[in-house]
Amino acid sequence: MSDSQHARDALQAYVNAFNRGDAEALIALFAPDAVIEDPVGSPPKQAAGIPEWFRQGVAMQARLELDAPIRGSHGRAAAMAFRVHMVQDGQPLTIRSLDTIEVNADGLITRLMGYWGADDVEAR
Amino acid sequence: MSDSQHARDALQAYVNAFNRGDAEALIALFAPDAVIEDPVGSPPKQAAGIPEWFRQGVAMQARLELDAPIRGSHGRAAAMAFRVHMVQDGQPLTIRSLDTIEVNADGLITRLMGYWGADDVEAR
Repeated sequence: MSDSQHARDALQAYVNAFNRGDAEALIALFAPDAVIEDPVGSPPKQAAGIPEWFRQGVAMQARLELDAPIRGSHGRAAAMAFRVHMVQDGQPLTIRSLDTIEVNADGLITRLMGYWGADDVEAR
Repeated sequence: MSDSQHARDALQAYVNAFNRGDAEALIALFAPDAVIEDPVGSPPKQAAGIPEWFRQGVAMQARLELDAPIRGSHGRAAAMAFRVHMVQDGQPLTIRSLDTIEVNADGLITRLMGYWGADDVEAR
């Protein structure tokens, strides 16, 4: 399987794990040295910050809906545009988002960049 | 205007310039020290390689169609999922692609990463 296909598969597994509310499966997709910058421009999450972040996301009932097919690359990277639906303090929200990832030789995610700004958040 | 909005505007200008076949306008969106990695995993294009690449793209009649609204960030970055329609050696092609950019304080693009793999290319 190509490096690009490993990366695509990791993104699809990321969507699937969120959509069944499985924080442990999300955490297992990441390498121990992974860095998450989501949203881009915010302080990166690493190490123990990553499980904490996914448990919060699952608690907010985050569900991901792809806007278009996942894109590959000519290397160990892939990307996707999607909307994430969640409930924050009792308020249903949708965020228009876009993630890029890099994976290592084992197919584990080493870097995730999440692109969304204040203008991409909508109350439902 | 926020840094994120500068980056969104640069992406929209990039789409518009391709869609009117204006290579000089595309080139003018980039800072002198810009780096383009498109597709991700291929050798980066820099300096004189950038005008050459855009002139080739315009010669191939590349037209960009957004799959979803452009995403911003919490910094000087933005991203978009799109399809690019072009003609290569007489053959009409569509590539499912996704670009992320960073801009400098003047709103000029310093980095563009284009995510697409062999599986994202379709003959029309």
